[in-house]
Amino acid sequence: MRVSRRGDVDPFIVMDVMEAARAAEAEGRRIIHMEVGQPGTPAPAGARAAVARAMEEGSLGYTVALGLPELRQRITALYADWYGVELDPARVVVTAGASGAFLLAFSALFDAGDKVGLGLPCYPSYRQILKAMSLDAVGFRTSEANGYQPVPEDLPWNLQGLIVASPANPTGAMLDRGQIAALVAAAEARGAAFISDEIYHGIDYDKRAVTALEVTDDVFVINSFSKYFSMTGWRLGWMVVPPSHVRTVERLAQNMFICPTHASQVAALAAMECDEECKANLAVYAKNRQLMLEGLPKAGFTRIAPPDGAFYVYADVSDMTDDSLAFARRILDEAGVAVTPGLDFDPEQGHRYLRFSYARATDDIAEGLERLAAFTKAG
Amino acid sequence: MRVSRRGDVDPFIVMDVMEAARAAEAEGRRIIHMEVGQPGTPAPAGARAAVARAMEEGSLGYTVALGLPELRQRITALYADWYGVELDPARVVVTAGASGAFLLAFSALFDAGDKVGLGLPCYPSYRQILKAMSLDAVGFRTSEANGYQPVPEDLPWNLQGLIVASPANPTGAMLDRGQIAALVAAAEARGAAFISDEIYHGIDYDKRAVTALEVTDDVFVINSFSKYFSMTGWRLGWMVVPPSHVRTVERLAQNMFICPTHASQVAALAAMECDEECKANLAVYAKNRQLMLEGLPKAGFTRIAPPDGAFYVYADVSDMTDDSLAFARRILDEAGVAVTPGLDFDPEQGHRYLRFSYARATDDIAEGLERLAAFTKAG
Repeated sequence: MRVSRRGDVDPFIVMDVMEAARAAEAEGRRIIHMEVGQPGTPAPAGARAAVARAMEEGSLGYTVALGLPELRQRITALYADWYGVELDPARVVVTAGASGAFLLAFSALFDAGDKVGLGLPCYPSYRQILKAMSLDAVGFRTSEANGYQPVPEDLPWNLQGLIVASPANPTGAMLDRGQIAALVAAAEARGAAFISDEIYHGIDYDKRAVTALEVTDDVFVINSFSKYFSMTGWRLGWMVVPPSHVRTVERLAQNMFICPTHASQVAALAAMECDEECKANLAVYAKNRQLMLEGLPKAGFTRIAPPDGAFYVYADVSDMTDDSLAFARRILDEAGVAVTPGLDFDPEQGHRYLRFSYARATDDIAEGLERLAAFTKAG
Repeated sequence: MRVSRRGDVDPFIVMDVMEAARAAEAEGRRIIHMEVGQPGTPAPAGARAAVARAMEEGSLGYTVALGLPELRQRITALYADWYGVELDPARVVVTAGASGAFLLAFSALFDAGDKVGLGLPCYPSYRQILKAMSLDAVGFRTSEANGYQPVPEDLPWNLQGLIVASPANPTGAMLDRGQIAALVAAAEARGAAFISDEIYHGIDYDKRAVTALEVTDDVFVINSFSKYFSMTGWRLGWMVVPPSHVRTVERLAQNMFICPTHASQVAALAAMECDEECKANLAVYAKNRQLMLEGLPKAGFTRIAPPDGAFYVYADVSDMTDDSLAFARRILDEAGVAVTPGLDFDPEQGHRYLRFSYARATDDIAEGLERLAAFTKAG
C-alpha cells in the first residue's frame, strides 16, 4: 500500500531509550529514569476523586468541542491569578493535550508548504507534527550565550510562523517579558503567526514565567495539564487563541477531535483546586534541581546552565563524546541511568549534548547522580 | 493574525442543532434527542470500576504510543471472536478515538493535494479532516438502489484513497463481503489506499457486519470504543494497519499524540469483558429500530430503508421540503424533537433528507415518534 512522504517522520529517540530501559528492567536491572519528561506523581487526589464521582453520577459522553464551559472559565481565573491577565473564556480552547493543541493551531494557521521557525534545540515533535501536516519546519541556530533561546537576530526572514517555548525543553531556559515582546515584534514584521508553548508554566524556580498574553493578544498560547498538574496520561491541554480565530478553531476541533476526553476535563477542573499538592510536587523539583546543579558538575558534567523552569538540564558533553547517542547507551548499560541524547532536540548539534530530567523522586535523582559520578570516574 | 485556507472548514450542522436544543431546554422545554449519534448509556460498569481501581493503584502516566500491549492483544481476540480473523497484535494501534485514527491514517497515507473519495452521503468530518490536512475530498454520488453505499462504477478514476463505512452513517446500510471485495479491487486498480470505517460494528441487527480484514490485509481498518462499548466521551478507538505501515504509524503517533488517554485504555480493556451490558444496550437499539420502522411511516416519513446496523434512519423528505435545515428547525421549534438535516452528510442533495438517531432510551424514541406524527398531521 502507498505511504506518504509526510508520514516519513524521524523516530522519537527518547522512546527508544525508554524501550531499552524497559528491556533492562525486564532483565532484573534497576534503572534510574532521567530520560522521561513526566512527573512520577499521579494526578492530584482531588482530581481522581472528582473522576470517581463523575463516573457514578453521569454518562461522561461527548462534551462540546471547545471543552466544558466551567473548565474554560476556571482557566481564565488561572490567568488572573498567575499573571494578572484578564481573559474572555470564549478564547480558551480545551484540547487533547498540548499535542492536540498543536494540531489545531497548525491547521488553523498554516497551509501546505508554509514555513514555521524553530530555534534549535527544541521539543522534537514540533518538527515532526509540522512535517506530518505538509508544513516546512525551519530550524535555526540559537546561541549558548542566550541560553539557547531565540533572539530576533537569529530568525530567518521567510517565515509564516514561529514557535517559542518558555520554559524551554530541553534547557529549562525562560524568556522575560522584553525578550518575548522582541520576538513577537520580529514575528509580526515577518507576517508570521506567533505560537507560545507554555506547558511548563507553574514549574519555575527563582522567577515567575511570563505568558505571551502579557505582551499581546495576537498569539496562540498553548498549555497543558500534564506537567504542573501532573496529568500526563490524561492527555489534556488548552490553548488561548485570538478572538478572530475562535470560530475557525471550534470548527476544526469539532471535526478533528469531536471533544477532549470528558473524564480528563473533570479531572483537570478539580486539579486546579489542588494547589497544595501541586506546590508539594514543585518543592520536590526544586530540591532535585539543587541536587542536579551540585551533582552534575561533580560527575564531570560541568557545561550546564541552571534551568529557570521545567525539570531538565541540558548538558554540553562535547568534552566527553561526539556521539551522544552511543554515549547515552553506554550510560544506560554501564551506569543503569537512562538519559536522552541531544539529537532529539537538535539534529545538527545534538550529538554533543545530553538532556537530564529530574522529574522523578528525589531519592532516585540522588542515586542517579552517584551512579553518573561513578561512571565518569571509571571513564 | 493570519488564517489558513485549510482551516476554513464547514461547520458541523448537527452541533448547531444540539446548541439550539440546549437553548430550548434552558428555557424549560423538554426536547427529544434524535439528533445525537451517541448512546445515552455510560461506559459499562466494569469499565468504570476498572478506572476507579487504576486511579488508586497507579499514576496513569503516558503509555507507549501504540497503546497498552494487553489492550492491543485483547483487540485481536475480538477479531477472532467476531469474525474468525487471526491478527498480529503488532498491527493494532490504539488511538485517541476514531478521530485520532483518521488523523494518523491520513498522515501516513496521503500527501498534500491527494484525492480521497467519499460516497455521498457520509460522515461529514471525513471531508473536513481531509481539508484541514490539505487533502482533496472527492465526494461522488451513490444511488438509493444501492442503499447509498458506493459500488465500483460510482468511483472516479483519479483517487489516491477511498473511505468506506459499513454500517454507514447516516444510513445504517452495510456492505457484504462481495461488495467490500469489489470496492477493495476498485481501489487497488486506482492505486488508492482503502480505509474501512467500522466504528458501528457490533451494532447490527439481522446480519453480522463484515470487516474488510476478512477480504484483505492491505487496508486501514478504523474502529472505536464509542458506540458498541458506549464510551463516546472517553475518546478511544483503534486502527488495524498493514504490517508495512506499523512503524510509520508508530512514529506519527509518538509525535502527534504521545499516547491515547491512559484511563480510557484501562476502561476499554475492561469494557471488552462487559458483553452482557453491551448486548443489553444492543437490545434497546433493536427495539428502538423496530419502533422507528413502524412509527416513521405513520408519521409521514415513508421514504426510508431499514438500517442494517448503527442507530440511524436516513429519510428522504423531498415530498415534505426542499430545505431540510429549515425543516429540522421547524421540527425542533414546533415538535420539540431535535433531528439532523442531511446537509451535514451530503452538501449536494442533503437538503432533501433528514437523519433520525435512535440511540437513546426507548421511551424517548416512542415519545419522539408521537410528536413527529402530531407535527406532520398539524402540517
